[in-house]
Amino acid sequence: MQPRVPADAPPLAPGFVATAEAAADAAGAVIRPLFRSALLVEAKGDASPVTEADRAAERAIRELIAARFPDHGVIGEEFGAERADAEWVWVVDPIDGTRAFVTGRPLFGSLIGLLHRGRPVLGLIDQPAAGERWLGVAGRKTRFRSPLGGTVGCRPCARLAEAELSCTSPDMFRPEERPGFERLRAAARRVTWGGDCYAYGLLALGLLDVVAESTMKPWDWAALVPVVEGAGGRVTGWNGRPLTLESDGRVLAVGDPALLPEAVGLLGG
Amino acid sequence: MQPRVPADAPPLAPGFVATAEAAADAAGAVIRPLFRSALLVEAKGDASPVTEADRAAERAIRELIAARFPDHGVIGEEFGAERADAEWVWVVDPIDGTRAFVTGRPLFGSLIGLLHRGRPVLGLIDQPAAGERWLGVAGRKTRFRSPLGGTVGCRPCARLAEAELSCTSPDMFRPEERPGFERLRAAARRVTWGGDCYAYGLLALGLLDVVAESTMKPWDWAALVPVVEGAGGRVTGWNGRPLTLESDGRVLAVGDPALLPEAVGLLGG
Repeated sequence: MQPRVPADAPPLAPGFVATAEAAADAAGAVIRPLFRSALLVEAKGDASPVTEADRAAERAIRELIAARFPDHGVIGEEFGAERADAEWVWVVDPIDGTRAFVTGRPLFGSLIGLLHRGRPVLGLIDQPAAGERWLGVAGRKTRFRSPLGGTVGCRPCARLAEAELSCTSPDMFRPEERPGFERLRAAARRVTWGGDCYAYGLLALGLLDVVAESTMKPWDWAALVPVVEGAGGRVTGWNGRPLTLESDGRVLAVGDPALLPEAVGLLGG
Repeated sequence: MQPRVPADAPPLAPGFVATAEAAADAAGAVIRPLFRSALLVEAKGDASPVTEADRAAERAIRELIAARFPDHGVIGEEFGAERADAEWVWVVDPIDGTRAFVTGRPLFGSLIGLLHRGRPVLGLIDQPAAGERWLGVAGRKTRFRSPLGGTVGCRPCARLAEAELSCTSPDMFRPEERPGFERLRAAARRVTWGGDCYAYGLLALGLLDVVAESTMKPWDWAALVPVVEGAGGRVTGWNGRPLTLESDGRVLAVGDPALLPEAVGLLGG
């Protein structure tokens, strides 16, 4: 499927992609030794060692960006927003999928996104334990490397009745969101639970057709948009409109853009 | 934690472990090329290519066992039972976790179990995409190899209030089973969805404390028992009794045996 090229996509400076990759490398170096470690086993689900790793990784990412692009903004889960009104703003989450990380599933990811005037133009999903990495740049085809295989490209799927739906947890929805999700789920062929950012990566490989989630912060979705759209899919709010920093946290991703109107209609905005 | 050694555990012939490993290798050789392949992407969730791979892998496993141990029985999902009343019976499922496999998640597994007079004495969980393998033998400490790390040993967890619970899907329970599962879930610290056989492997690494599931066939659980018990945990029915070929499909695994009475009480048999 041909990726959509936004007509007014800004030219990325050559250093932007290298910086995203270096940021993911820095996060991975902090996170990898902790995965399935004795420290995590002893923590018994207490998230504090993960929070510490998250903070150390985010600090490393921020230092790296500040050294290369001191006028860029940064938004991250642990240390909030700096220069959020800058032209270019990095939006990062070193460990997306804390539950997966804590329980030893290699489905968590480091997310490095870049917004240009609020629109996602670069996104990287890194799975540091298995060594998988998705890189999306607005207007270009998404790149993917993994020892587990897989090829970039969303698959055609014109009807929800044929669609594989994925969602991290049935417990992630606010009460007023449940009826919409249940309508979507009833219309889809099947649902698979779990996945966090990894599900959007699988959608970009043509292995899922729809992901619908809620309570997503900008650092949860910013990196996903260029990855999915550079594979031919779409990421929007439940209302079908582009995500912005002011969005309500409801995220819809479709591999085949033809699914969008039906999904938006069922979710009910 | 010290694995329980059944007082009357039979001596395994040296070839048994090698056969289990060879069976997993044979299954992996069939399955690995299909994972995330164009064939699966095009199948769009239609399970028939997976069923074909499952059948081809089970056929390879059965031929291998028949050549080495012609008097052993075999029970498998695709080709049913042969000599199920033999002293030694292999119980195999080349692709446990079809949903994970179809959607590209490396959490499915090939399961090779061996029963002696109905009791699981050898179990192997193989994740062929990532190259992870758990091997359990009654009375011995479970072995594990993986490029992703992890160390064998269930962790202490004396109270359900501190326990990480895992379950493949909230949709897997029969209506009469739901109240029991909901009581367990309410008592546990947290629940993570997804995982199939992989969750039992994570429990053997001390990363989860409880798994409770239902509608499990013998080929779904036979291999899991020696893996978990050789790491210090327990696998039983919801009634706390050992699983047998006549069990009702309700499976409970705990990392710390101290959790068993409380979990059984809540599940309500």
